[in-house]
Amino acid sequence: MNDTLHNDRLLRALLRQPVDVTPVWLMRQAGRYLPEYRATRARAGSFMALCQTPDWACEVTLQPLARFPLDAAILFSDILTVPDAMGLGLTFSEGEGPQFACPVRSVADIHRLFVPDPETALRYVMDAVRLIRRELAGRVPLIGFAGSPWTLATYMVEGGSSKDYARIKGLLYDQPGLLHRMLEVTAQAVTLYLNAQIAAGAQAIMIFDTWGGILTPRAYQEFSLAYLARIVDGLTRVADNRRVPIILFTKGGGAWLEAIAATGCDAVGVDWTVDLSEARRRVGAQVALQGNLDPAVLYAAPERIRAQVAQVLADFGPGAGHVFNLGHGVQPGVEPERVGALVAAVHELSASRPTGDGV
Amino acid sequence: MNDTLHNDRLLRALLRQPVDVTPVWLMRQAGRYLPEYRATRARAGSFMALCQTPDWACEVTLQPLARFPLDAAILFSDILTVPDAMGLGLTFSEGEGPQFACPVRSVADIHRLFVPDPETALRYVMDAVRLIRRELAGRVPLIGFAGSPWTLATYMVEGGSSKDYARIKGLLYDQPGLLHRMLEVTAQAVTLYLNAQIAAGAQAIMIFDTWGGILTPRAYQEFSLAYLARIVDGLTRVADNRRVPIILFTKGGGAWLEAIAATGCDAVGVDWTVDLSEARRRVGAQVALQGNLDPAVLYAAPERIRAQVAQVLADFGPGAGHVFNLGHGVQPGVEPERVGALVAAVHELSASRPTGDGV
Repeated sequence: MNDTLHNDRLLRALLRQPVDVTPVWLMRQAGRYLPEYRATRARAGSFMALCQTPDWACEVTLQPLARFPLDAAILFSDILTVPDAMGLGLTFSEGEGPQFACPVRSVADIHRLFVPDPETALRYVMDAVRLIRRELAGRVPLIGFAGSPWTLATYMVEGGSSKDYARIKGLLYDQPGLLHRMLEVTAQAVTLYLNAQIAAGAQAIMIFDTWGGILTPRAYQEFSLAYLARIVDGLTRVADNRRVPIILFTKGGGAWLEAIAATGCDAVGVDWTVDLSEARRRVGAQVALQGNLDPAVLYAAPERIRAQVAQVLADFGPGAGHVFNLGHGVQPGVEPERVGALVAAVHELSASRPTGDGV
Repeated sequence: MNDTLHNDRLLRALLRQPVDVTPVWLMRQAGRYLPEYRATRARAGSFMALCQTPDWACEVTLQPLARFPLDAAILFSDILTVPDAMGLGLTFSEGEGPQFACPVRSVADIHRLFVPDPETALRYVMDAVRLIRRELAGRVPLIGFAGSPWTLATYMVEGGSSKDYARIKGLLYDQPGLLHRMLEVTAQAVTLYLNAQIAAGAQAIMIFDTWGGILTPRAYQEFSLAYLARIVDGLTRVADNRRVPIILFTKGGGAWLEAIAATGCDAVGVDWTVDLSEARRRVGAQVALQGNLDPAVLYAAPERIRAQVAQVLADFGPGAGHVFNLGHGVQPGVEPERVGALVAAVHELSASRPTGDGV
């Protein structure tokens, strides 16, 4: 895997090194807003078939790159493949979201959890990573990812999406020891899984803590951040003589940026509820920041998108260490042209700005 | 309305005056978790009939007080009665939540919005307030409430609950002037409505900004907080020779407590994602704080509930200015006995604490 990386803006920015223009990629850049994605999804028959067939996963991973000059590809997969490999039986029903056939509902269920071998139970992911790297041929780096143990646990216990998180929070407040047991196994599984992705060719890693923001500050520290920190400690940090940057993203975690930065990760994802200027002031030179345009800006006209992009760039200010992204995924109802306007605006508006080497 | 108020802990705490024990009430203390509520709701036939029939609204308002030694009653109603009175046609379908027959979808719809007269279009609310005050006979104070203009606008534009707020955010980013026009009319309507509640007998006022937390810091300031501040300015602050305290609550607004406190309100609601110790440090002596137990704690065993109550009380610390509450409403699946354990724990554990007169 010693192909030259032609565009290394993402990796440089994540390590707070100077870049010519601010790199940009978007969460869910491969997804339902793209007609070509919907066509592939229809051919695959199910969302799980898309994820589990390396050819299809590769095809949809590359689709947004064919349209827009994005600075990274992100593996097309789902955070719930890990609990699926732990035997929970994942399916996606139309309009209903993810469902586990065997959710974790008893002490016995928790004791039955095990760490799956990534190269067997999740081999389809590793094959997809290898294939995407080959097809990318060094154009841009490939980001691998996983869900945080806490976020995975919420789905594993609730059995799918939830409105009030009654089961997982009941477990947290009533039997915290059992929840810790579950999070420990899950953290080990995620660590092995991400290291396998790195071995297969992932050049940066992002961990999605989608539901950390529903916790109290104390519970976040104890049940989410502690396991994120353990994973960061356990990850391979150099591959092919390049540092593999790690991005941690807790949605709704704006109050805890300092603590997230202190885990030893390279970059922190920031949603749109915090100004990047304030975020940067708070984390200082410790980490890079990724974000943080409100995804709903993509419903506006191109010139308004451009103005909002300019605002985010101005909020971050001069100096290295910014990866432009949304504060959450591209929404399915967005017109692809709006995404094009966003990507163009980031590159154009950041080209004239000093990127120096830090503040 | 010159009846003596036998328990004025709530009003005193909201004004940062010393109290014997920390007052406690719970958002949605009258609601689906109570079998007697479900029985009344079944007799009423629909949620709207419950709200619109003063006898029933009074009955369910008083139900939790018959079970638990709560320190306040809160008017049983819904924040969406105001847009309903503006002609949007509110219904609640089982399991689907609120629906507007005529959501705001065009420039003409926005120009058609008007400020309803509270004593005609919302007379049923004022009648309920008067009846509840009579039935309470000064046992505890009655809290009146309304939704924030931004929160009402989200429902008015989306037509009901929303997952991604595409329409209202599209409006915000694409046609901010139109949204401002809508928020202005709505803020006037809310001000009149709350002043009518105060005239009818509401002794404290809470404004629920349920969806302020989905905004960027700038958009929150411009589209939500600015209108909250205007309402605070326009409210009657003294009735029957007593100050009528105003509580502002932006769910997910933990980052903006200082700005909320600066509106001139008397108290700020805090959800569970911020420690009260930090919240208090940030707002200082400007306002009282209301909150902030995670509602999911009510799924735990009574001794665990007690420990979490102790934590919240310890977080606030000694001194006046704390009203105990959840960080959001009581969830429907909670056993009523757990609520009893919470209320008892607040009174017992705070009885021994110094309440002085401020920090």
